[in-house]
Amino acid sequence: MTAYNAPLGDIQFLMSEVFQADKIFASMPGTAEVTPDLISAILEEAAKIAENLISPINQSGDQEGCKCVDGVVTTPEGFREAYAHYIAGGWAGLTGEIDFGGQGMPKLLSSPIEEMFFGANSSFALYAILNTGATLTLSEHASEVLKQRFLPKMYEGRWTGTMCLTEAHAGTDLGMIRTKAVPQADGSYRITGTKIFITAGEHDLTENIIHLVLAKLPDAPAGPKGISLFVVPKNGLDNEGSLSGQHNGVFCGAVEHKMGIKGSATCVMNFDGAQGWLVGELNHGLSNMFTMMNYERLSMGLQSNGLADSSYQTAAAYARERIQGRSPTGPQQPEGEADPILVHPDVRRMLLTMRANIMAGRALSMYAALQLDISRFHPDLDQRQKADKLVALLIPVAKAYCSDRGFEMCVTGQQILGGHGYVAEWGVEQNVRDARIAQIYEGANGIQALDLMGRKTVRENGELLAVLLTEMDKFIAGAQDVLGMDQYLPHLLNNQQMIRGVTRRVIDRSRDNPDEIGAASYAYMELLGLTLYNFMWLRILAAVLPKLHAGTGDTPHLSGLVKTAEFFFARLLPKGQALVAEIEAGAETLMALSAEEF
Amino acid sequence: MTAYNAPLGDIQFLMSEVFQADKIFASMPGTAEVTPDLISAILEEAAKIAENLISPINQSGDQEGCKCVDGVVTTPEGFREAYAHYIAGGWAGLTGEIDFGGQGMPKLLSSPIEEMFFGANSSFALYAILNTGATLTLSEHASEVLKQRFLPKMYEGRWTGTMCLTEAHAGTDLGMIRTKAVPQADGSYRITGTKIFITAGEHDLTENIIHLVLAKLPDAPAGPKGISLFVVPKNGLDNEGSLSGQHNGVFCGAVEHKMGIKGSATCVMNFDGAQGWLVGELNHGLSNMFTMMNYERLSMGLQSNGLADSSYQTAAAYARERIQGRSPTGPQQPEGEADPILVHPDVRRMLLTMRANIMAGRALSMYAALQLDISRFHPDLDQRQKADKLVALLIPVAKAYCSDRGFEMCVTGQQILGGHGYVAEWGVEQNVRDARIAQIYEGANGIQALDLMGRKTVRENGELLAVLLTEMDKFIAGAQDVLGMDQYLPHLLNNQQMIRGVTRRVIDRSRDNPDEIGAASYAYMELLGLTLYNFMWLRILAAVLPKLHAGTGDTPHLSGLVKTAEFFFARLLPKGQALVAEIEAGAETLMALSAEEF
Repeated sequence: MTAYNAPLGDIQFLMSEVFQADKIFASMPGTAEVTPDLISAILEEAAKIAENLISPINQSGDQEGCKCVDGVVTTPEGFREAYAHYIAGGWAGLTGEIDFGGQGMPKLLSSPIEEMFFGANSSFALYAILNTGATLTLSEHASEVLKQRFLPKMYEGRWTGTMCLTEAHAGTDLGMIRTKAVPQADGSYRITGTKIFITAGEHDLTENIIHLVLAKLPDAPAGPKGISLFVVPKNGLDNEGSLSGQHNGVFCGAVEHKMGIKGSATCVMNFDGAQGWLVGELNHGLSNMFTMMNYERLSMGLQSNGLADSSYQTAAAYARERIQGRSPTGPQQPEGEADPILVHPDVRRMLLTMRANIMAGRALSMYAALQLDISRFHPDLDQRQKADKLVALLIPVAKAYCSDRGFEMCVTGQQILGGHGYVAEWGVEQNVRDARIAQIYEGANGIQALDLMGRKTVRENGELLAVLLTEMDKFIAGAQDVLGMDQYLPHLLNNQQMIRGVTRRVIDRSRDNPDEIGAASYAYMELLGLTLYNFMWLRILAAVLPKLHAGTGDTPHLSGLVKTAEFFFARLLPKGQALVAEIEAGAETLMALSAEEF
Repeated sequence: MTAYNAPLGDIQFLMSEVFQADKIFASMPGTAEVTPDLISAILEEAAKIAENLISPINQSGDQEGCKCVDGVVTTPEGFREAYAHYIAGGWAGLTGEIDFGGQGMPKLLSSPIEEMFFGANSSFALYAILNTGATLTLSEHASEVLKQRFLPKMYEGRWTGTMCLTEAHAGTDLGMIRTKAVPQADGSYRITGTKIFITAGEHDLTENIIHLVLAKLPDAPAGPKGISLFVVPKNGLDNEGSLSGQHNGVFCGAVEHKMGIKGSATCVMNFDGAQGWLVGELNHGLSNMFTMMNYERLSMGLQSNGLADSSYQTAAAYARERIQGRSPTGPQQPEGEADPILVHPDVRRMLLTMRANIMAGRALSMYAALQLDISRFHPDLDQRQKADKLVALLIPVAKAYCSDRGFEMCVTGQQILGGHGYVAEWGVEQNVRDARIAQIYEGANGIQALDLMGRKTVRENGELLAVLLTEMDKFIAGAQDVLGMDQYLPHLLNNQQMIRGVTRRVIDRSRDNPDEIGAASYAYMELLGLTLYNFMWLRILAAVLPKLHAGTGDTPHLSGLVKTAEFFFARLLPKGQALVAEIEAGAETLMALSAEEF
């Protein structure tokens, strides 16, 4: 196993040079105090947490897993101590509301931190991420009383949060949930039902666990419009909000045995008349939950990308050091018994595919995070509304495309190590297993693609896409003047044309046949993802080329980025044509089969 | 976990209708007794073994894994009993030489049987497959004395074989091995060294284990030309070839912890002056080993494909039964709370992608197996030579392309189950882990692609490809007359044109720059794989359409095949264009980076 190295150079370059975070943060009152120095200091501290605190317990955590005995869940050795250090550093409240003890940091800063934590130890990171998601939901929708009761302790990390949505028979279709909430005289509710796949549902890291639970009142409307959201602590609270010493009827029934993220407790949770309080309005539970979803879904792309980067580091080091065979053009290290496998074009193809996807995925995640920040902090309503539209369009792509590519890149990294990649020792097989879940949870990637194609594109008649294309146009106009950019910009113009064409086609076709949306959705998500990676590489080049021409900066890093971009254009971008053909193919061949013909 | 169902209908259809095995077997003296009735009987018995004997211990075997205590390896519970049944049925000698107790069955018959065994329980199947590979090598290269000593017991399955190639520092580059063989006065050798990643290197299924070991004599030439092959039993033999009661200095140092195939013991093997005998000529070990490789590599594609089919069965059943949401075109089961997820175009896309790849992969494996049989059994020298050429070209594709697609299809099947696919219960996550190894072992897929592009294509100046293209031309000429085929045949003509073009280009370019071979190899392997899947679907259609038009046969099966083929042409075939672009891109962007720029 090789140690995780936080990619601070890449992150800082994206932050300061590509996205010019300092200027944007300075322009918004809510982020005015987030100076470049503060950004650097926080990123560096986060890198230490990733490298020194949680990476060392990643492999052992996988091997040991979580245990559940009589409802008591034990996390792997070292997790409790690491978590205590983590919250002592104030990380749990990084992006929290300042009024309740959070630090109010923007998502653009927390995104690469999440990438590092996930890359170093996804199982550990999940306890933190779920808590952040839960606090965000409370922050947006709970009453002042509830916020005061829960947020300060959750921002401290003394309590962690969960999201209790799925039931055994209701995953994608939450309208079917059966968990009941019965109103009580004191204004609270009694919650009864069973939830499955609850990340961090039960564990031994904190003195309390705060569940956000979707449930239905006995007389609620059928389907999704009858779902309400409740906050339900594991341990009961007294009137001051301190632990009452009473258990609240929340029990862990089992911990799932699963492919990966074994150090993360994925629980079956039984609520047995547990006391809870309504969050937001009655029957608005689903939409309240979705506020948080844009943040959580972005995190899932970051998870895979972080793990892919961890695998890249291991694979690149292996390729430099593994001595095997000779270069096709003659010995490169004639004094040795063989050359390092990095001399082989096909090994380079694999490494470059990883590097090109990982860097673009990181940039896309940060770009989406930036839009979340503008949407939240910008003083100008127009800017906020534009950012809202970009968020709506970008998030399903950042979730699905980044997690798909992230998983594939973990697989590619494993391949570079050959048999050594298949055994546990080097850690890259664990990355494959841990990354796989990001394509599934928080809405499986097929659902993301449907959301993008149906709700965000067809229903909006392409308006959100038009906003994004205008942003690209603005970038292209500005980048024309950057020396050397003219050779690269046509790639994006070409992609824009493709996506415009298929968008129009799907919108037209779906008028007559709603199945055309789902028939096109996955390839469409991939085409937009590819287009966005293209956009990101161009934005990176527009920041790199002037520095390279001026001879400033870390030359191998900069020239490596240019060459990786050129690889991306030559080798990965051509896939767009196949995706267009797939979209054009339409619904017919999909819907032709009867159930028995499968 | 759903039970494995052997795909007998598909296999029988390919065997009798598509490849017309009865005619081919009847035309070759060595296979004349392999009648359609015998084929059916054997396939049906094999299906029972897969379904009833080894599938039930697949998941438990994964959970328990193999244990190694003080060099003693224990297989998972039930493996010993199942193995005893398996060999009692005579399966170990199915393809073995009749003169030494084998049954002399052709590979075209054993291939789909291997697919079934791998699909039902890959860990278990590996004990059998390794034995078959070892017997094949002995059969081809060992002296009569050695064959008499080892083959009968290995065909009985009382002893199993292994292939000991890899050392910690020498995997792809076997020229670097350090295991030594010292000649003894009695004509035997003393073998000393350590081998890693030895499948079935030690276990508790048999009374002896026969290792085929690559080693070098003290005065051997450097590199691959100094490698010799030895047969080394775990337990010593007396002059009659019976167990002498003496241990032979072969020890298992450890069992690897790995991603999957956990019921298969992957061993570190220490040879400590173990007695062995030379197989074949001195210093011809590597080429002797390669005889067997064409058979083994075909098996690896079958492994992934079998597991993918197992996942397909589970995913298709899940999609039919899982009630969630509504069809985009309105409720399909309005009486129920929701529709089965099979109504969704994107779920169908996933299932059809699986079905299209699995069926074509099965057909390609059988087509390659048929060439192996013709090469071995055909009375006509020309036919044998043509088959040899096809084998050389097809095997790296059947290994790499089938195992890549097989793995991807396991991942796709897992995706259809959502969160239920990530937990162990349903078994599809195990299929992903078990299938992953097939892309790595027996020569990683990148090595297969290099073999195809370099040795088999550039070095042969495209001559092997020309043989394959001629076979396709012959098929097209014959299929013109089949009612309804004319609409499909242009797909293959188009693919042929693509592959002709890029083949010429790579051969030309590689004259000036040997790196062009490795730069093109992977995409070239994928393009040829796609072309062959296309060819296979057309061959299937040419058998299906007449039956469908005549109204004979199992209609949903036949019409399902036609619709799956149409999906393949519309949705999967367009990828070829992207692969051509990738090949055309050449070596430049790959080789531009210095080691530090990665």
